[in-house]
Amino acid sequence: MTSSPATTSGASKPVPAGLVEAFWAYERALMTDDLDALDRLFAPGPTTLRGDAAGLLVGHDAISAFRGRRGGAPRRRIVQTHVQTIDEDHALVVAITELERGGRGQQTQLWARGADGWQVTAAHVAVPPPALDTRVWRVVGDPLVPGAGRGPLAGETVAVKDVYAVAGHRTGAGNPAWLDAAPTARDHAAVLGQLLAAGADVRGIARTDELAWSLAGTNAHTGAPPNPRAPYRVPGGSTSGPASAVSLGHATIGLGTDTGGSIRVPAAYQGLFGIRTTHGAVAVDGLLPLAPSFDTVGWLTRSAALLAAVGDVLLPPAAGPTPGTDQVVVVPALLDLASPEVAAAVRGLAPADASEERWPLEDLPAWLDAFRTVQAWEAWQSWGAWLEDRLHVLGADVRGRFEHARTLTEAQASAARAVADEARATVRTLVGGRVLLLPSASSVAPRLGEDMEPVRASTMLLTCVAGLGGLPAVSVPVTTAPATGGLPAGGCLVAAPGRDRDLLRLAVDLTGDGTETRPPRP
Amino acid sequence: MTSSPATTSGASKPVPAGLVEAFWAYERALMTDDLDALDRLFAPGPTTLRGDAAGLLVGHDAISAFRGRRGGAPRRRIVQTHVQTIDEDHALVVAITELERGGRGQQTQLWARGADGWQVTAAHVAVPPPALDTRVWRVVGDPLVPGAGRGPLAGETVAVKDVYAVAGHRTGAGNPAWLDAAPTARDHAAVLGQLLAAGADVRGIARTDELAWSLAGTNAHTGAPPNPRAPYRVPGGSTSGPASAVSLGHATIGLGTDTGGSIRVPAAYQGLFGIRTTHGAVAVDGLLPLAPSFDTVGWLTRSAALLAAVGDVLLPPAAGPTPGTDQVVVVPALLDLASPEVAAAVRGLAPADASEERWPLEDLPAWLDAFRTVQAWEAWQSWGAWLEDRLHVLGADVRGRFEHARTLTEAQASAARAVADEARATVRTLVGGRVLLLPSASSVAPRLGEDMEPVRASTMLLTCVAGLGGLPAVSVPVTTAPATGGLPAGGCLVAAPGRDRDLLRLAVDLTGDGTETRPPRP
Repeated sequence: MTSSPATTSGASKPVPAGLVEAFWAYERALMTDDLDALDRLFAPGPTTLRGDAAGLLVGHDAISAFRGRRGGAPRRRIVQTHVQTIDEDHALVVAITELERGGRGQQTQLWARGADGWQVTAAHVAVPPPALDTRVWRVVGDPLVPGAGRGPLAGETVAVKDVYAVAGHRTGAGNPAWLDAAPTARDHAAVLGQLLAAGADVRGIARTDELAWSLAGTNAHTGAPPNPRAPYRVPGGSTSGPASAVSLGHATIGLGTDTGGSIRVPAAYQGLFGIRTTHGAVAVDGLLPLAPSFDTVGWLTRSAALLAAVGDVLLPPAAGPTPGTDQVVVVPALLDLASPEVAAAVRGLAPADASEERWPLEDLPAWLDAFRTVQAWEAWQSWGAWLEDRLHVLGADVRGRFEHARTLTEAQASAARAVADEARATVRTLVGGRVLLLPSASSVAPRLGEDMEPVRASTMLLTCVAGLGGLPAVSVPVTTAPATGGLPAGGCLVAAPGRDRDLLRLAVDLTGDGTETRPPRP
Repeated sequence: MTSSPATTSGASKPVPAGLVEAFWAYERALMTDDLDALDRLFAPGPTTLRGDAAGLLVGHDAISAFRGRRGGAPRRRIVQTHVQTIDEDHALVVAITELERGGRGQQTQLWARGADGWQVTAAHVAVPPPALDTRVWRVVGDPLVPGAGRGPLAGETVAVKDVYAVAGHRTGAGNPAWLDAAPTARDHAAVLGQLLAAGADVRGIARTDELAWSLAGTNAHTGAPPNPRAPYRVPGGSTSGPASAVSLGHATIGLGTDTGGSIRVPAAYQGLFGIRTTHGAVAVDGLLPLAPSFDTVGWLTRSAALLAAVGDVLLPPAAGPTPGTDQVVVVPALLDLASPEVAAAVRGLAPADASEERWPLEDLPAWLDAFRTVQAWEAWQSWGAWLEDRLHVLGADVRGRFEHARTLTEAQASAARAVADEARATVRTLVGGRVLLLPSASSVAPRLGEDMEPVRASTMLLTCVAGLGGLPAVSVPVTTAPATGGLPAGGCLVAAPGRDRDLLRLAVDLTGDGTETRPPRP
């Protein structure tokens, strides 16, 4: 490959005829974003591969669709090439790239010559990562805030959702206009102070959906954090940044909030453990409110054991004997709200002695309406004064919710609250002293760009049960069957108020070693 | 490849016999760090390849040496494999890995069957990057500190060496014990305030060699930032983090200091532009001192144009007519202090009308001794009170320097200062109104782990010329000839005090479009 500064060719075999020209034709096509040429230079069919840090694309169609969406590759030049010739129709080309924006990357391509000339059958592309992944983080440090150095959480690192006060920093709430005007916090939010005192370090301040009012994780200003377990799918929100940070191994604890599912949904979509605590059990001092009647502190981890260890620090001490049993109850009508593959995976989490019950849930849609109305009413109480003159600073989806919230009357809110109160009583009675197992979300993570509204509606039918009840909920990761995608989903354990620690212990018991059970390697 | 949850095999060809077994044998060897087995499973010879984010290793020996040093791969499991069978003796295996610490990676291997069975001839390994590269950064943000939003540097991002005050943050000086006890800065360092007012954002606080007293860039506590242009070689210091941040594209401006070469050396090693300003020309308020007689503000960029644009913000306005010409002078005795390939590359930077002069430099070694003695004496004045009881907190190399500094007497310092004053006068006379071109460092970047002392001594013979003279110096990137490695080096332009702007303009002129000239692609 004589047309590059530094080239080696494998062993004694010469570089096959035409390969060098095809390699440079591909490079030119990439730099000019010539989609037709790129399509022609990648082998057709379902087994062609292209992988990068975002994930592996399988098949020519998926690769072509990706290229169509991305709008060109980063500017670069080739500074080294190495060719390993296999035979006159096959060769591997490894190229070192130098990016115009800085840093070096590597590109490994397997080329094959067929009827249509030389084509790539597999490509692996690596470029240097940015200083920080701004989809996940607003600020990170080594650490950002050091903990006490010792304690039960020593060695753990916290990704703090950008709705908690971090002393010395502003709180951004996922919106640039809010951030711009935000004061620097003098004190840490209460729970953050407890985590630091217990020895955990703060790794950084992680992204949230705007004003924490979304389940998607697709912030209009900073993008969707990646979902490593389900590439090219949404991360789930609104605790999106902390969830992705934990998935990626950037932090071990994701501190977030759950009003309508903002812990449970990202936990499910990304295969994490997550807890929404009993409403009112953990102090919300230093936390920006969304809907105080439902707002709760929550957190995400990669293991049930750590989820419980954080609970030992943040939860109030258990008072008196446990007010219930570990009897798990499954309600088919609730499972049926989820897609079949998610329902099956969640059912698989139920212990052998779980009981199945039919609950009178015909009012569930009305309960959800009431939940949404109270949530929206309170959200406007929380944010309306600031938003009144600047709804345009919000992304379309969240803006739509606030525009609706703004139209609600006090009468509507009162009526909804009456329904919600009734729902709370009913849910608490139904759950009683047992543990309800239901899906954390109605589906696996939707693909990026997919309309989230249908999934949002069906998911909230599930999440509003604990939300209305003010009940603790622990999401345990499960995986859908390989034939249906083998994607992460969540089984949600719900119990009576104050039984958070029982749920945390049950999550450890259900998952054996405290990490997700998945198909073993044969 | 039946032993993995999700597998596809390319086209219609079956997976060759024995490949699956070899793949899993490799995986087992990797997870147990069985170096012999790994060596056996990689093809022998000089063309075997293994690349990851740290760079491409070429040849079985280099790969084997790398494995011996690293002490095992991160724990992981294989969650997907795809095989593209080329013929019964060749196949590509693409595997998706799931790291125990979080995130997913990809591994692409070309396997060939020879007399010794199946072996890898090329491997490309990618793992998810950490939240921040702690070798480069202590804290980063999006941005960490927003600039004025408009101004001549709008859109630029600054990596601040961890010796400048950043309001709201501590100053770490490259030493964890100092950082632990450091107060939070109330105000920005003066130059930082100017950069922010000119529209630049602060990306983050970047690593420095300990107390800024080293040229290596190998901080004993946080490791060596990577040198993307010269993989597996040192980044140069002490402005190591800002230099690597700019090389990697994490920031566009690296704000640092230069006492004995701390801007010029990393600029040379990483192929960047860098300026050490006239001593005293730019305020050092808010900057931790090392040796105030020689300490200067400096910065690094990837283009000469931006280097000059920062100068327009930070340098005092030019007063009156330019006190010199652009006549470039080359002194063979100074070129001869560098390795032949560096000397040749630097000579190549000289314009056609450059003059060659023989300077009386027989006292240069004595001048350097005086420079080092004054530097060490002042370094102890700066840091001795704090270090007296805790020299053990320093890494070995920097500690050795301070242990020596502590033994110096005032008489020794005075004698050295007299020599240094004489050297200053002589250097200023020799340079006169022209521009001296000499190597920024005596060699290309040494390999990681190599003894730096010989290179340090020969490099300081070069860097002390501007240091003693208090002169401005601009390092312009050059590249050694491909046959001698094709690695970055630096040509250093030195002129009379106050001629910083002239040097910045000359750097733009010498490099045409303001970026480094390198061999064009044929």
